[in-house]
Amino acid sequence: METEKLLDEKLSRRNLLISGGKAAAGAAILSVAGLKAAKTADAYEFASAYKYAKLDTKEVGQITYENYFNRWCTSSVVAGLVESLKKKAGGAWKDFPIDAYRWGHGGLAGWGALCGTMPGAGVVIGLVTKDTDTAEAMVNDLAFYYAYTELPDFTPAKVLGADIKHMTVAGTPVCHISVGKWMRAEGVAFLAKERAERCARLSADVAMEAARMLNVWSEGSYKPKHKPLYNVLANGITSQNNCRDCHGEYTPSPSKTYDTLNK
Amino acid sequence: METEKLLDEKLSRRNLLISGGKAAAGAAILSVAGLKAAKTADAYEFASAYKYAKLDTKEVGQITYENYFNRWCTSSVVAGLVESLKKKAGGAWKDFPIDAYRWGHGGLAGWGALCGTMPGAGVVIGLVTKDTDTAEAMVNDLAFYYAYTELPDFTPAKVLGADIKHMTVAGTPVCHISVGKWMRAEGVAFLAKERAERCARLSADVAMEAARMLNVWSEGSYKPKHKPLYNVLANGITSQNNCRDCHGEYTPSPSKTYDTLNK
Repeated sequence: METEKLLDEKLSRRNLLISGGKAAAGAAILSVAGLKAAKTADAYEFASAYKYAKLDTKEVGQITYENYFNRWCTSSVVAGLVESLKKKAGGAWKDFPIDAYRWGHGGLAGWGALCGTMPGAGVVIGLVTKDTDTAEAMVNDLAFYYAYTELPDFTPAKVLGADIKHMTVAGTPVCHISVGKWMRAEGVAFLAKERAERCARLSADVAMEAARMLNVWSEGSYKPKHKPLYNVLANGITSQNNCRDCHGEYTPSPSKTYDTLNK
Repeated sequence: METEKLLDEKLSRRNLLISGGKAAAGAAILSVAGLKAAKTADAYEFASAYKYAKLDTKEVGQITYENYFNRWCTSSVVAGLVESLKKKAGGAWKDFPIDAYRWGHGGLAGWGALCGTMPGAGVVIGLVTKDTDTAEAMVNDLAFYYAYTELPDFTPAKVLGADIKHMTVAGTPVCHISVGKWMRAEGVAFLAKERAERCARLSADVAMEAARMLNVWSEGSYKPKHKPLYNVLANGITSQNNCRDCHGEYTPSPSKTYDTLNK
């Protein structure tokens, strides 16, 4: 219920900000009812045995890396986690359709939206944790890791693509911006072997970070590093903190936009 | 193998473009090897019985719409399809963890990246089609539908959020841009009931479009409307066709960027 509490705490202040001081009008217009209603089922149950067992993160990384050259980002992260879980936990993982998530690659079938590594990890996180708040917090922490860590950091046992020189900070979970920044730093085109190598190593990094979090969670000691939905409240819209990557100097203010439109 | 053929057809021309006429250098630097290697397993098998039965698209839409107010975008689209499949096809759908994908909402836990409706549909499409090329083509067609259709188009049996006036064309599968354009047209803030209503109807639209495609596919007559990976080849990077939404007048050319960096 962490998410809901945060929303409750923040919303009164936010109402004031977004409605430009007109608290009464703001309260009428902005409703957390939909968000609250969304919390009917924090925990969810299903029969299939997707049990978790502590994983060797380095092995998860290596499997993910090797799979990338056959399966691209989403299903490679799934493979790194699931192939390890097949061995360590067995059960339903043995029949897991690893390739059923291939369409997530390249920010959704190459559309460059969300980097496919995070939804790949999310599929496994959602099946393992069986709790919407925990899965939300973990995926949110993973997005922070992806956006604000110099990547790729993984070193493969044997280079399968090409040697690469650069690490970059994406500042976003968006594929197009993330890979574009790295391509600019490295000086290579998208279809270059070097770019494939970068995404393979990056996939390994994300799978390893997910395994690290799940390992801690399996010991009962996972605590979210970041507050879920913070950006939604801070910016008044689903968003990131890289506004100027797209908006340049003219980043709209949600309160200004709202007030202007409603005068 | 449609994707691979397309890449083969386009790549020789693209090599020339990206390498600025230096075909030999281009061929050395740009390699389709990674992409070709990625096609080892077009069809994939697993034991769980995720069978498909033709669905009533209007019912799928209505279930999705109603679920939105409890489950947000991703798991609502999953719910619309899966609740219908539970009744019509049964089998493994009866134990399907609908809430395990909630983290996809708001463009990944509120980060505003990929609208969560499409990965929600993708989860079901991937399990049903059991073929990477078909799933890729279907998700790609769904992204085109999402990006270039005036939405939301769905009319609920009973309005659960609020009456809304506007339909907008997102031009992108990105949540932040899509919802931002609609908020601007409607003149409401993100936490307004109207915005929740819009996303609930939009979720219904995407679930219905997925059901329409799967219905046609189940009759053996699904043909992709759009070429997969076209944007990757056209723009030289995972991307969309809304460059100016973020880049303004200064949209970089992949060939120019590449040539400049390698001089």
